[in-house]
Amino acid sequence: MSLLTVGSVAFDAIETPFGKTDKIIGGAGTYIALSSSFFIDEQNMVAVVGDDFPSSMLETFKKKGVNTEGIQVKKGEKTFFWSGKYHNDMNSRDTLITELNVLGDFDPIIPNSYQDSSFLMLGNLSPQVQATVINRLEKRPKLIAMDTMNFWMDIALDDLKKTISMVDILIINDEEARQLTGEYALKKAAKMVQSMGPKTVIIKKGEHGALLFHENHLFYAPALPLEEVFDPTGAGDTFAGGFMGFLAASGEVSFENMKRAIIYGSALASFCVEKFGTDRLMEITKADLHHRVNEFVRLTNFDMELTY
Amino acid sequence: MSLLTVGSVAFDAIETPFGKTDKIIGGAGTYIALSSSFFIDEQNMVAVVGDDFPSSMLETFKKKGVNTEGIQVKKGEKTFFWSGKYHNDMNSRDTLITELNVLGDFDPIIPNSYQDSSFLMLGNLSPQVQATVINRLEKRPKLIAMDTMNFWMDIALDDLKKTISMVDILIINDEEARQLTGEYALKKAAKMVQSMGPKTVIIKKGEHGALLFHENHLFYAPALPLEEVFDPTGAGDTFAGGFMGFLAASGEVSFENMKRAIIYGSALASFCVEKFGTDRLMEITKADLHHRVNEFVRLTNFDMELTY
Repeated sequence: MSLLTVGSVAFDAIETPFGKTDKIIGGAGTYIALSSSFFIDEQNMVAVVGDDFPSSMLETFKKKGVNTEGIQVKKGEKTFFWSGKYHNDMNSRDTLITELNVLGDFDPIIPNSYQDSSFLMLGNLSPQVQATVINRLEKRPKLIAMDTMNFWMDIALDDLKKTISMVDILIINDEEARQLTGEYALKKAAKMVQSMGPKTVIIKKGEHGALLFHENHLFYAPALPLEEVFDPTGAGDTFAGGFMGFLAASGEVSFENMKRAIIYGSALASFCVEKFGTDRLMEITKADLHHRVNEFVRLTNFDMELTY
Repeated sequence: MSLLTVGSVAFDAIETPFGKTDKIIGGAGTYIALSSSFFIDEQNMVAVVGDDFPSSMLETFKKKGVNTEGIQVKKGEKTFFWSGKYHNDMNSRDTLITELNVLGDFDPIIPNSYQDSSFLMLGNLSPQVQATVINRLEKRPKLIAMDTMNFWMDIALDDLKKTISMVDILIINDEEARQLTGEYALKKAAKMVQSMGPKTVIIKKGEHGALLFHENHLFYAPALPLEEVFDPTGAGDTFAGGFMGFLAASGEVSFENMKRAIIYGSALASFCVEKFGTDRLMEITKADLHHRVNEFVRLTNFDMELTY
């Protein structure tokens, strides 16, 4: 089934303990699209860039099956730019530069050809832009998932809660879940998010895996312990893209299938962090992905047949 | 098979955001023995207490199948006492009082009747005392596991490394693993510990579960997300006791069986934190335990049969 991806397409400059990059291509929408393309041959994308954005990347999107009709290219304007520096433990970072540029007044125009999209992934953007996308779809998609971040909780909490009430799945990290709900225990935080609207809440815990709360069901997906995390940028978006790409490809929205989708999302995220930016996602194959998924199966598999 | 447990038997006074206790019974040896007693009908215990220690607790140990011949009762001396206060996030605590008392010059005497013990669990004690226990056993047990803590890394690192080289399994938490090895990535830290001697390393991550590194195999056990952690005291020792109790009961030392043992240990630890001190361990039944283990199975179970 068709996936509509909405998210930033950007330039990032990243510094980690292992090195630093000049401006490279990033953005939530970019990671989501690249990740979901492992599962689906076609997807629709809504985004905005300036005319400084390389057309070669738009070609790359197309080769990956991304319909770029909804990517607005603003003449004489500059693409969204973010620069950040990771601390030694790679679990926290400082934002050095944020230049919104074209993202500042982003109006998410939905091409007519996108109207039949049955899955919608809203990458981190202002909650108003996210809600506008939903409102502009003539038919509500079968499944709507959204990401967000603490920034919107700080400056636009009411808007954010309104958008959250419109979606089926909220994907956030543990600190964001705690900030949004005021609950420290993630199980309580998830219940409170569910009371805001979404039946499904996915809480990402970085190197500690992810929790899937779906109605009354609970699944704990581990993260693969890695020897080296080279650059965490985009890992969460890659996870979300893999999750939604898998669901859209299979068309089945059930707890059992969401578990599989989370394993695939986690596997793709574990690749993402191995090199700077999108480098690793660009080079791995479906065979690499299946191999990594098998590592997850071995990592978590046990049978409790009692021997005592 | 028979389990020999060596560890502190103590008084604790605990303060958490939910309340505080007067002196209650605690100590690594206590939690290990209570936890392992869910699996084995008999175990041997080596510990030391003062004559202020209630004989009723020694009777409780006996009822749980604990051979108390090796618990020295020092006349005119006082039992080890620890007091601590947990911070609001329950992940860190301040030690308020440490009175070593009888533990200060603990000489771990092994009764002759204990010499045939085939499994040995060394609770957190000075590495010299732990090594003395191993050296006093005429026949090396089939499996030796030890716990330790950062305190010994600070003041007795050489002794600690020597003791670690003598055991099969090191059970520590993530911060201890990082301090011991200087490696931030737990996969690298575990490899370094393995190079010190133990073929098996278990890294406890609290609410994030535990990692089992056994030779070249890796298993990620989740922790059950809880709505409330009432008192974390003893959770790690309860985990270790359940792990070794399960292995000793089954007699099988394999990667597959260690995975089961970790699930049982995790399940017992998840009970431990629900009330102050040993209260919850004292009241739950084997049926409660099996019910909780089934929750772990449901929490982590997935099948990757592809639907896309």
